[in-house]
Amino acid sequence: MKNIKIIIEYDGTNYFGWQRQNSQITIQECIEEALNKVTGENISVTGSSRTDSGVHAKGFVANFKTNSTIPPEKFKDALNTKLPSDIVVKFSEEVDLNFHSRYACKGKTYKYTILNQEQRSALLRNYTYFVKANLNIQLMQEACKYFIGKQDFEAFKSTGSSVKTSIRTITELYIERKDNIIEIYVSADGFLYNMVRIIVGTLIEVGTGKIKPEDIKDIINSKDRNKTGKCVPPQGLILEKVYY
Amino acid sequence: MKNIKIIIEYDGTNYFGWQRQNSQITIQECIEEALNKVTGENISVTGSSRTDSGVHAKGFVANFKTNSTIPPEKFKDALNTKLPSDIVVKFSEEVDLNFHSRYACKGKTYKYTILNQEQRSALLRNYTYFVKANLNIQLMQEACKYFIGKQDFEAFKSTGSSVKTSIRTITELYIERKDNIIEIYVSADGFLYNMVRIIVGTLIEVGTGKIKPEDIKDIINSKDRNKTGKCVPPQGLILEKVYY
Repeated sequence: MKNIKIIIEYDGTNYFGWQRQNSQITIQECIEEALNKVTGENISVTGSSRTDSGVHAKGFVANFKTNSTIPPEKFKDALNTKLPSDIVVKFSEEVDLNFHSRYACKGKTYKYTILNQEQRSALLRNYTYFVKANLNIQLMQEACKYFIGKQDFEAFKSTGSSVKTSIRTITELYIERKDNIIEIYVSADGFLYNMVRIIVGTLIEVGTGKIKPEDIKDIINSKDRNKTGKCVPPQGLILEKVYY
Repeated sequence: MKNIKIIIEYDGTNYFGWQRQNSQITIQECIEEALNKVTGENISVTGSSRTDSGVHAKGFVANFKTNSTIPPEKFKDALNTKLPSDIVVKFSEEVDLNFHSRYACKGKTYKYTILNQEQRSALLRNYTYFVKANLNIQLMQEACKYFIGKQDFEAFKSTGSSVKTSIRTITELYIERKDNIIEIYVSADGFLYNMVRIIVGTLIEVGTGKIKPEDIKDIINSKDRNKTGKCVPPQGLILEKVYY
């Protein structure tokens, strides 16, 4: 028995997120079906996180156990021959038998992309969130620093998740602007349900002047979801990297 | 009666090109249906070119005549409310009654994007052509200069088109590399059928060493399609701009 770790890139547009569901197509299901085709085994794959419907990934990590004789580094190519064009395995290797891609995860980096211009874009529609209102990047960057550190992010969590604690450590949060494209990078030891998308929604309210950068401190301390911005749509979000 | 010029961006992935066909969905058909909805008239739209199935556009130009009282600059917004998310009108204005977007066209710029890396990409699959072989950009750039000028590009034309002459003037052809992304920009007073895609296919053969840069001159002079590279797939191609 071997434990294989894989790194996956996927376009989440046509999927109902990572996790297997009964009636709707998911990334996990596609990976498991491809594994079944190449190994003949019924393999259950463990994902490092549950990305939502429409969310993308460049560096999603998963692992699975197999008795197959396929060399670990060849699983990449073997799986890619069976996967649809919007899912690609970028890397595969054998790891310790007790490696668990979710439990062992030490942190993640997400990127959220905003298209800030007059007009929506046909070509970027599935990979950006279109915001017409002119956003003040300086204010948004100023606000970022208040998120850094170990804090209780209860106000930045959608209901529907059952986690023991809403304390997380954000290690990095910064913004890059390239013409009309605003990229928001956020790294943390873990994320609450919809946390990135609510942080971005709140930063947008800073960018439009509805919230002052220095108010972020009070908003975090309030632990009140009503004080934070809206949960922005999934297509702007991409899981960049998972750390171990 | 007014003559309205529009500039359109579209994602060609799900369309059978610009031109209206009987049984398959095209960009022209979508624009005409949207126009019918906003004006109540049956309007025929003239396009500046016929892009092929799967080809994209950022700056496609078209024009149409209408008796509608909608202010010319408002057609943009009116049409966008009726168009699918992968087609966007970026600009609209009234032009001279005898303006014809195809006949009046003085030139066009296309961009072709190659993804040159080990692995195909899930996220870029619809907007790039994946080439695994390592491409020598210096050689490709060297080859570009032989294309410039007024020449007979018969060897860079797919059969199936009926044009009087295959002489065209390429005013610009250059390559930009950003990591694994290779962007090839080409501008000319006009293009033959599949001309950009065959130029790119030929440049790729230069990049892999099959063709020497200085051989391009002889290849052009041969007027022989068998000497040029393959016609690369449509999804890497985007019509950037149309000049008048």
